[in-house]
Amino acid sequence: MKAIAIERGEQRLGVLDVPEPTPEEGEVLVRTLRVGIDGTDHEVINGAHGHYPEGADYQILGHEAVGVVEDANGTSLSEGQIVVPTVRRPPPESDNNEYFERDEPDMAPDGTYVERGIVGAHGFMSEYFTSPTEFLVPVPDSFREHGFLIEPISNSEKAVEIAFAARSSFDWQPESAFVLGNGPLGLLTLAMFEQQREPYATFERTYCLGRRDRPDHTIDIIERLGGTYVDSRKTPVDEIGDIHEMVDMVHEATGYGKHPFEAIDTLAPNGVGVLLGIPNNWSFDIDGGRLHRDIVLHNKALLGSVNSHVPHFERAMESLATFPDWSLDALVTGVYSPDKAKEAFNEGNGAIKTTIEFSEP
Amino acid sequence: MKAIAIERGEQRLGVLDVPEPTPEEGEVLVRTLRVGIDGTDHEVINGAHGHYPEGADYQILGHEAVGVVEDANGTSLSEGQIVVPTVRRPPPESDNNEYFERDEPDMAPDGTYVERGIVGAHGFMSEYFTSPTEFLVPVPDSFREHGFLIEPISNSEKAVEIAFAARSSFDWQPESAFVLGNGPLGLLTLAMFEQQREPYATFERTYCLGRRDRPDHTIDIIERLGGTYVDSRKTPVDEIGDIHEMVDMVHEATGYGKHPFEAIDTLAPNGVGVLLGIPNNWSFDIDGGRLHRDIVLHNKALLGSVNSHVPHFERAMESLATFPDWSLDALVTGVYSPDKAKEAFNEGNGAIKTTIEFSEP
Repeated sequence: MKAIAIERGEQRLGVLDVPEPTPEEGEVLVRTLRVGIDGTDHEVINGAHGHYPEGADYQILGHEAVGVVEDANGTSLSEGQIVVPTVRRPPPESDNNEYFERDEPDMAPDGTYVERGIVGAHGFMSEYFTSPTEFLVPVPDSFREHGFLIEPISNSEKAVEIAFAARSSFDWQPESAFVLGNGPLGLLTLAMFEQQREPYATFERTYCLGRRDRPDHTIDIIERLGGTYVDSRKTPVDEIGDIHEMVDMVHEATGYGKHPFEAIDTLAPNGVGVLLGIPNNWSFDIDGGRLHRDIVLHNKALLGSVNSHVPHFERAMESLATFPDWSLDALVTGVYSPDKAKEAFNEGNGAIKTTIEFSEP
Repeated sequence: MKAIAIERGEQRLGVLDVPEPTPEEGEVLVRTLRVGIDGTDHEVINGAHGHYPEGADYQILGHEAVGVVEDANGTSLSEGQIVVPTVRRPPPESDNNEYFERDEPDMAPDGTYVERGIVGAHGFMSEYFTSPTEFLVPVPDSFREHGFLIEPISNSEKAVEIAFAARSSFDWQPESAFVLGNGPLGLLTLAMFEQQREPYATFERTYCLGRRDRPDHTIDIIERLGGTYVDSRKTPVDEIGDIHEMVDMVHEATGYGKHPFEAIDTLAPNGVGVLLGIPNNWSFDIDGGRLHRDIVLHNKALLGSVNSHVPHFERAMESLATFPDWSLDALVTGVYSPDKAKEAFNEGNGAIKTTIEFSEP
């Protein structure tokens, strides 16, 4: 079968012909419909993040997938069921570990998991993949086309869960949220924040940071979703209070190393900044004394959040179901066949979310 | 009556003769037993923090008090009841505000409160003080002597509440806690962490940071309480993992501006650092990219916490009741009469917690 992979020693992807996987006991065979591309895939390709499956000469990419059960293999799933796979799995040498036993692999420390398509395990960018049923989230048929967006949204659902938990010891009444980054995750998060259901209905005003000139496709999406576009070249993150307002929640999806520290200045009293980006090392000067004092005197919080698990996928599915159709059409700017994978990965300006389509949804 | 106060324009305290206050409706008159001295008092004296009550030529100091109801003034309290006052109060020009209405003045932003002895209101360092009953926590007679420690402990109780809340969205099983600072609040917090009741019983190993040579009174207390002394000159905060272990909770009570950032490196995956110190401005270089990445990839949290309210005072009372008698004797190194206030405030090396005794407990 066709697989989009990187070969050991190469920092570029290729379309390989690899053996079709056979499901083991408790696993099903999934026919892949679509797999999204994101920044992590590029980091895996250039070697900045992740590593190959043990003993493998290549690593199949992709961790944002939707597929259909092709062979239920005697499990509780039915053939034809649409499924979205989670990313973290127990490492092959261990049957399990405590974080998987308590169904919280997203909280597992390094070395106690592999990640499909990223860390030590093959991803989903192939015509078929196998998975234990416990790591497949069944979704309605209506998600055949856009179900690959559930995984990225699930990361923001987990981040929001951890952020609201961090404010649960008092009566927090957030009204404003600021999404840093107008890439795919930023725009999906903004759409998530614009929902009229809990906990998102509490956000009366949303902002989204970018650094693009009008006319721009992402600015149009931000504004049509109901958000206010903040141009970081005119309004640095830590000056939003002067121009608009101090915000109750900051959601960082940029990987820009200064954003966590600028976010402290941006937060209203009792606010929370939740960080999802993964920057490289970068030393710079901060007024740490002032930031420390501000965090304390205003009960602020700064949290990291990585990965997600089944409950977050389920909430992401519910969120995605509320996104207006026009927004999905606007966000998914490229649908490519596997043979055009190189073009898909090299999509330039104007592209938001790109997906490889392995099988007609 | 005698009051320990600073006069406008002076940056040193004096013992003034001021009028005895008269309780208004809903208020009681409290005869002061003891009032503790802490770092904030010194900041108020030297003008770094707080401000005078509106229209007053002097400010009475002191926010860590225990007293006895002298005149119940028709309220629900009884004369002879031992009480500990909270610190934040509604500003005089407003009857109330939303944070007071919902009983969470500790979460109120600047400008929506005054603080007795600190920000715009007289403190408790006088023979008598008045207070509405809602801001007085009744405590058993056994706290006559050490009840003034309830206020500082309550700040750590609130910090721990906010820290555990921030980890409540997953199954957090902390085993180790690291208290930064071996001043009075650090040592009281260590004693709090050593309790065998929830949530503190979860801490199997505790550490406390200082920078003193043995033999030293505070090191003796740390070790007798069951903690491990960490000398910051030999083991910087961000190297505790190399020498001991990465820790699940860091409690910062130093006001040292670099500690929040060093704490990130100190935390085990899913760990939480809670900050209580109030440093001055201080610019320095950090590897913000690395810290940002570490927060995200390991789901770490950094929280500020300031002030406390009635529920935290009540928990502090329960904690204080578990502290061994020897530890209270060891912690309270100075008891001074009001006439000796200057000596009390100038206590030097070897002093831990100093209190002014206005009336025999």
